Amino acid sequence: MDTNAESTTEEPPTINSIPPDKSYTSADKTEVKTDLLEQYLRRRQRSEQLTDGLSPEDMTAQSMPDASPTKWHLAHTTWFFEQFLLKPQLPNYQEFDKHFSYLFNSYYNNIGQRHRRDQRGLLTRPCLTRVMEYRAAIDDQVQALLGQTLSVESDTTTGVNAAAQITGTTLVGLHHEMQHQELMLTDILHLLSHNSMQPAMRAGLPASTSSQSPLRYQNYNEGLFSIGALKDDHLTTNRSFSFDCEHPRHQIYQRGFSLANRTVTNREWLEFIQDGGYSTATLWLSDGWAECQQRNWQAPLYWIKQDQDWFQFSHYGLVPVDLNAPVCHINYYEADAYATWANARLPTEQEWEIAACEYPIVGNFQETDHWLPKPADGHVQDMLQLYGNVWEWTRSPYSPYPGYRAAAGAIGEYNGKFMSGQYVLRGGSCVTPIEQLRSSYRNFFYPHQRWQFSGLRLAKDS
Amino acid sequence: MDTNAESTTEEPPTINSIPPDKSYTSADKTEVKTDLLEQYLRRRQRSEQLTDGLSPEDMTAQSMPDASPTKWHLAHTTWFFEQFLLKPQLPNYQEFDKHFSYLFNSYYNNIGQRHRRDQRGLLTRPCLTRVMEYRAAIDDQVQALLGQTLSVESDTTTGVNAAAQITGTTLVGLHHEMQHQELMLTDILHLLSHNSMQPAMRAGLPASTSSQSPLRYQNYNEGLFSIGALKDDHLTTNRSFSFDCEHPRHQIYQRGFSLANRTVTNREWLEFIQDGGYSTATLWLSDGWAECQQRNWQAPLYWIKQDQDWFQFSHYGLVPVDLNAPVCHINYYEADAYATWANARLPTEQEWEIAACEYPIVGNFQETDHWLPKPADGHVQDMLQLYGNVWEWTRSPYSPYPGYRAAAGAIGEYNGKFMSGQYVLRGGSCVTPIEQLRSSYRNFFYPHQRWQFSGLRLAKDS
Amino acid sequence: MDTNAESTTEEPPTINSIPPDKSYTSADKTEVKTDLLEQYLRRRQRSEQLTDGLSPEDMTAQSMPDASPTKWHLAHTTWFFEQFLLKPQLPNYQEFDKHFSYLFNSYYNNIGQRHRRDQRGLLTRPCLTRVMEYRAAIDDQVQALLGQTLSVESDTTTGVNAAAQITGTTLVGLHHEMQHQELMLTDILHLLSHNSMQPAMRAGLPASTSSQSPLRYQNYNEGLFSIGALKDDHLTTNRSFSFDCEHPRHQIYQRGFSLANRTVTNREWLEFIQDGGYSTATLWLSDGWAECQQRNWQAPLYWIKQDQDWFQFSHYGLVPVDLNAPVCHINYYEADAYATWANARLPTEQEWEIAACEYPIVGNFQETDHWLPKPADGHVQDMLQLYGNVWEWTRSPYSPYPGYRAAAGAIGEYNGKFMSGQYVLRGGSCVTPIEQLRSSYRNFFYPHQRWQFSGLRLAKDS
Amino acid sequence: MDTNAESTTEEPPTINSIPPDKSYTSADKTEVKTDLLEQYLRRRQRSEQLTDGLSPEDMTAQSMPDASPTKWHLAHTTWFFEQFLLKPQLPNYQEFDKHFSYLFNSYYNNIGQRHRRDQRGLLTRPCLTRVMEYRAAIDDQVQALLGQTLSVESDTTTGVNAAAQITGTTLVGLHHEMQHQELMLTDILHLLSHNSMQPAMRAGLPASTSSQSPLRYQNYNEGLFSIGALKDDHLTTNRSFSFDCEHPRHQIYQRGFSLANRTVTNREWLEFIQDGGYSTATLWLSDGWAECQQRNWQAPLYWIKQDQDWFQFSHYGLVPVDLNAPVCHINYYEADAYATWANARLPTEQEWEIAACEYPIVGNFQETDHWLPKPADGHVQDMLQLYGNVWEWTRSPYSPYPGYRAAAGAIGEYNGKFMSGQYVLRGGSCVTPIEQLRSSYRNFFYPHQRWQFSGLRLAKDS
Repeated sequence: MDTNAESTTEEPPTINSIPPDKSYTSADKTEVKTDLLEQYLRRRQRSEQLTDGLSPEDMTAQSMPDASPTKWHLAHTTWFFEQFLLKPQLPNYQEFDKHFSYLFNSYYNNIGQRHRRDQRGLLTRPCLTRVMEYRAAIDDQVQALLGQTLSVESDTTTGVNAAAQITGTTLVGLHHEMQHQELMLTDILHLLSHNSMQPAMRAGLPASTSSQSPLRYQNYNEGLFSIGALKDDHLTTNRSFSFDCEHPRHQIYQRGFSLANRTVTNREWLEFIQDGGYSTATLWLSDGWAECQQRNWQAPLYWIKQDQDWFQFSHYGLVPVDLNAPVCHINYYEADAYATWANARLPTEQEWEIAACEYPIVGNFQETDHWLPKPADGHVQDMLQLYGNVWEWTRSPYSPYPGYRAAAGAIGEYNGKFMSGQYVLRGGSCVTPIEQLRSSYRNFFYPHQRWQFSGLRLAKDS
Repeated sequence: MDTNAESTTEEPPTINSIPPDKSYTSADKTEVKTDLLEQYLRRRQRSEQLTDGLSPEDMTAQSMPDASPTKWHLAHTTWFFEQFLLKPQLPNYQEFDKHFSYLFNSYYNNIGQRHRRDQRGLLTRPCLTRVMEYRAAIDDQVQALLGQTLSVESDTTTGVNAAAQITGTTLVGLHHEMQHQELMLTDILHLLSHNSMQPAMRAGLPASTSSQSPLRYQNYNEGLFSIGALKDDHLTTNRSFSFDCEHPRHQIYQRGFSLANRTVTNREWLEFIQDGGYSTATLWLSDGWAECQQRNWQAPLYWIKQDQDWFQFSHYGLVPVDLNAPVCHINYYEADAYATWANARLPTEQEWEIAACEYPIVGNFQETDHWLPKPADGHVQDMLQLYGNVWEWTRSPYSPYPGYRAAAGAIGEYNGKFMSGQYVLRGGSCVTPIEQLRSSYRNFFYPHQRWQFSGLRLAKDS
Repeated sequence: MDTNAESTTEEPPTINSIPPDKSYTSADKTEVKTDLLEQYLRRRQRSEQLTDGLSPEDMTAQSMPDASPTKWHLAHTTWFFEQFLLKPQLPNYQEFDKHFSYLFNSYYNNIGQRHRRDQRGLLTRPCLTRVMEYRAAIDDQVQALLGQTLSVESDTTTGVNAAAQITGTTLVGLHHEMQHQELMLTDILHLLSHNSMQPAMRAGLPASTSSQSPLRYQNYNEGLFSIGALKDDHLTTNRSFSFDCEHPRHQIYQRGFSLANRTVTNREWLEFIQDGGYSTATLWLSDGWAECQQRNWQAPLYWIKQDQDWFQFSHYGLVPVDLNAPVCHINYYEADAYATWANARLPTEQEWEIAACEYPIVGNFQETDHWLPKPADGHVQDMLQLYGNVWEWTRSPYSPYPGYRAAAGAIGEYNGKFMSGQYVLRGGSCVTPIEQLRSSYRNFFYPHQRWQFSGLRLAKDS
Repeated sequence: MDTNAESTTEEPPTINSIPPDKSYTSADKTEVKTDLLEQYLRRRQRSEQLTDGLSPEDMTAQSMPDASPTKWHLAHTTWFFEQFLLKPQLPNYQEFDKHFSYLFNSYYNNIGQRHRRDQRGLLTRPCLTRVMEYRAAIDDQVQALLGQTLSVESDTTTGVNAAAQITGTTLVGLHHEMQHQELMLTDILHLLSHNSMQPAMRAGLPASTSSQSPLRYQNYNEGLFSIGALKDDHLTTNRSFSFDCEHPRHQIYQRGFSLANRTVTNREWLEFIQDGGYSTATLWLSDGWAECQQRNWQAPLYWIKQDQDWFQFSHYGLVPVDLNAPVCHINYYEADAYATWANARLPTEQEWEIAACEYPIVGNFQETDHWLPKPADGHVQDMLQLYGNVWEWTRSPYSPYPGYRAAAGAIGEYNGKFMSGQYVLRGGSCVTPIEQLRSSYRNFFYPHQRWQFSGLRLAKDS
């Protein structure tokens, strides 16, 4: 082993070795206040910018129950602020439209009945213009509320608590909006892929010129490690923001392992295809093989073979598959079958986090405006592509961390109730907002789903 | 009444008693020419007028595989003229857009592959503006072609034949467009019904003031009758236009029967509901009862009970059910169960035609701009509501007439291949263009379908 | 035209030309009495003989909802006599087993709730022995009842009526049992076909030595014809027995037509296959083509290709396809597509009946113990194979005859409620009891169903 | 109790603290030899005894794809020995029947194609008698092979290896047979539950007289623990037998927790029902709630309410629900919802194992012949019911242990390929053979499945 994340061989950490969180000073608080308003407005504006190149029609259709219309995303993220921030905080708050609570509730049973998820594409009304008015109206009110909250001298405990709650909910709302910004891009891609005209939503994709980076396995020693987000009061500032499912930070005993220094490339995936990967039952999990045969998977989603060449449908229309770039739009079953074929396995989410927490969050994210994974570019001794490009499937089912408790009330439905049947993905993709990511961030999808920007990195027992 | 529609008891018609068609003179021909251009432009314009009150988003969505988006209807009817008129008739014809042949083909296997029917709502592109440009471009070319065709002195047989073919195909295209005009209205209603805001596409429905008309059975004696459209060369003029499935006109032997003088009303249907009609197995056909239980039918489609009152979703939003108006949006199984409950039966299509061919084609049609069935209004001795208001389910499966032959080529797919599993409806509805109707017109739908303006008229054996 | 069924060209029949039914004399009545007891016992015994070669396990399993276990057939036909004969006629009748009314009711809503049709194969209890005891016990009681009924001097009207009712219901029960005898054979074949060991239920099929009979079309002139069973009091004797759906006998006007002198052979069907019949959309009805693609039909049911040769699973195990024999186990959609391919059409049920009523009921029936269709054998000038061998699909949807009324009470559910979505087949098959057949007999199945012994005969307009 | 399973607070175990396995001496080997033959014969005989009270018909039917017919279980377990033991070890081995390899392969892709799992109930042939002959024939050969193997002086390494392989495979086969013995009982119960006669397979259930045991939570301190089966060479003796998925034994860091001293009772479950547990969305996992609504769960499987009382279908027919006995036949979603309702959670499989490894394996197992869970009976300070009675759902998805590797060849398909989408259950049930159980045993089922004898024990964070 050359270097490893946490050198534990000589001095194993004690059981209570979890490092204390950074203490925030009053200077931080001021910074937070100024940040939050600016952050809110910037984030909300960003959602609207992402729709550049889309018509109202594009923004209304729904291609499958898992994917929502762009317009619905724009309205739902607004509904979130109205429902969880304005309604509880403003005593005499009047709803913008009495129908919207029903139409734009996603899955909050505490809030009440809602429009059927698989029929969101039938909501031709409210029209886009009306949804934009909704956004503007809610933004005005949130802005007023935040301005007032942050300016007040909070002498009393009540004042402090209320302000903390407003700040906290606003932060959740912004991170919620970031998640939907990514979904807007994955969902519209799925929609447009059904159109035989192969329309490009964006123009001007620069050609890739890289070559494939060598594959190397990095060894990590066994030991005790702390996993999960640092702060327990996770709703206070963006700097340390995290979702409930990343908590509590807890200790695990980790066996030695090694991790690939980059994600699997399209070239490598093509070898898997050519070696009969999609038709060899013994490579697959039992459930995966059943679905593979039933749905006739033969290549990643969006791959199209024309004559002898492979192309990929993207936000830029149909483009040639870049053999050096990470494979993308594969599901858990495919990732697992590939790993078996390659005499390796998928990493656990803990292994990934142990490796990733050492690295700064840099990579090909949504802000780069290059919504296709890029080839690895860097020193072979480094762990490359940990953040951005493609979400990396882990072999970890999405389960509660030891000591996890769902939050009270409707926001408690945010994460906990999805903890069955899904797998954790780590690291973010080329359509994830960079501010959303951290080493403890847990994304999760069902093992058959392919429409996210999902790829894989190999691991081995050491 | 003792007299009956065709007095056959004394002088039974001979077997060859089918009356000869009217002979057309050259005077007629001139009239046809002038008519056709004007008709074409008026009909095409009408399709666009029907979209008043709809946004591009409304016109893109699809609420079920059976119903198509408005925009798709606008494009498909245009595609019909491009494909069947312009392409065959103009030697160097260049397609408006090479993708449209694939996107807007409905079901013509002869023309080639096509976009999946259940995914028409995913065609956010071409956008509405582009589809309107498509319409305009095709209209220009058809106008030129028709102008040229009709002005030429057709001395030669070839010229005559070509002109006849152009005229014929144009007429089919116009009647095809009429059918889609009705579908545009039924399909958009179905879409909007999924929106909990219950949006009204149209405003200003006048209140109904009628009372329920008395129910009377009209007797018809047994005998030989001729059924079907008059002319065999059915594509020549609008005056005698008919589809292939209305041919050949043929003789039948009809047993004596009696027919209700009006359609069943909402008031009568309510009695059926209150008498447990939807929960009494023995009233239903076996297949109907299975579906009734599985889909939990309890009232006509679009009926909603609020407190103790019944309302009906319509193009005018949610309106109270008019108890004197014809029941509408019921399927064949419901119609048959009602008839059984009422100690009656549905008429055959032949019985309906025997009664209807005596009456002029007047009634509440699409042009009335009252897109809800109206109560019967007229003399109790007359057969009322034969045309317009609601399509009337008959007990006749949609089958070929004796001697029927499908046309050659792609147009031959128009009607013949649907002759299994469906039932014939007669008479047109309040959203049918009046020019589409005639006593021989055969509409057909599957027995479970409810989204058309379908009702029923009772019959009995005499 | 050489000869035709009813020479109508010179003297067209008058409207009231339906021949009067044969008048029965008292001599007939005695004959009926003697017959009935003997008939009952023979018919009931026959059902049990048909299970030769089957184990209790074979007789319990169900291969699809449409097919019932042999044991269930044995019990249900017994239940029919218990329910419709013993219970109404014997004042203090005690049910053999209180559960059986629930377990062995097929679909009679008037009788009450029942065991799920698709779960009949889960009825491992009552065991076969118990079902045989049930049969014996009911047979004893029916025998006693019949003996008593037929011996009594029926002076009073009441006595006559009661006796008539007992006789009538017994006859219905016997014809019901015949129908289930055929179903026992079709259903067990379907079950055994799922076993890769290809077990033979019967041994000793003699090899066929015939050659293919020449195909000739017989012309029939237009005219008025009477269709349907002769007697209206259809429950009196077996000689004139008929089901309600064959009534009332009624007059039709028939256009001229011609009918093939024999059914379509396996050799001809192979040509259809080799000419791409199963992959040519334009040959098929729209619904049929959808199902053909979805279910991947490529040959008749039970056909298996081994190397270059076609085999057919049968009651005799896997046997080579006899090219001269009638094609069998094809559904309506396939039959219709074949007819289109052959530039012909399917006959209507009326056309078939007009031709068949001239011929005696002879052919390869169940009693022949050759449960595979046999090649046509006879004079080319005759209409061959009208009865037995294969049921012949007609293009007639199964609809009520003019003036049809369902019987009152539970027996009224027998036929009427199935009059939607199905097509009529005529003539019986090699597994039909010969006594069940007559020229007016209407069998009916859904157009996608293939497990019956169904084939086709071509027709043309003349 | 204040002391906990492994006292770690004072002296935390070192990383390499896993205790060495017991060293086996030659004395053990002799014992093994004698055991194995006796074990084999006894185990095989037991499978046949379990069918007491069943007819060949009972043993042939299949009530759902998840459940197999008894006859199939009897044949498949035999096939296992033929395929994995006789074929590889006997050079000239002739298959008993060439069809059986296809018919009785469950899911081994390495072995080849197989009969459809959802159509096992259609295998009326081979009949039961033939399957019993199959069992006898294979037993003879296995007996001969084992006798020979165990008698030979194994001087050479090859001999030792071959003998070890034979012994190992035999042991796997016996544990495989034990698993199927349990499934035979759960599957036949499911089948018989579909029969409205509610047949009892067994007689003589003694009435329960217990009262409900008090509920107490036992605390366990945090620390490092070893999880998994002891020996890596897991195929050598029954004493230390374990499946691959229980390996490798590995270290985990466990947070403090507390565990209920007994399983949840029917009385407690009734409170959950009466408190609206089945209709309160917020108690449920999202996937669970969707299924609960769709499948209309309202009580555990096999519960039937008659008037005001609850009954339960069992091997003894319909019996009253014993309120003091453990709730049974609930799935993961129900268990999780209950735990949420009770302000607790399900334990992880590690927590369960930490608690259970301290206790001897005693409880209500299959051999007790009381195939219904019994009320807890013991000292309140003890952990009760850990083994037998009901399988206990854990919140742990069935995933590979760190360092897990699937075995090579077909046996490698045994466990590894099912490691997605399922949850681990621990402890065995009243229909599990006692020899099958150990503290490391991992059973696994899908979260919606209810037909196993599955219940739950609550846990909490401490």
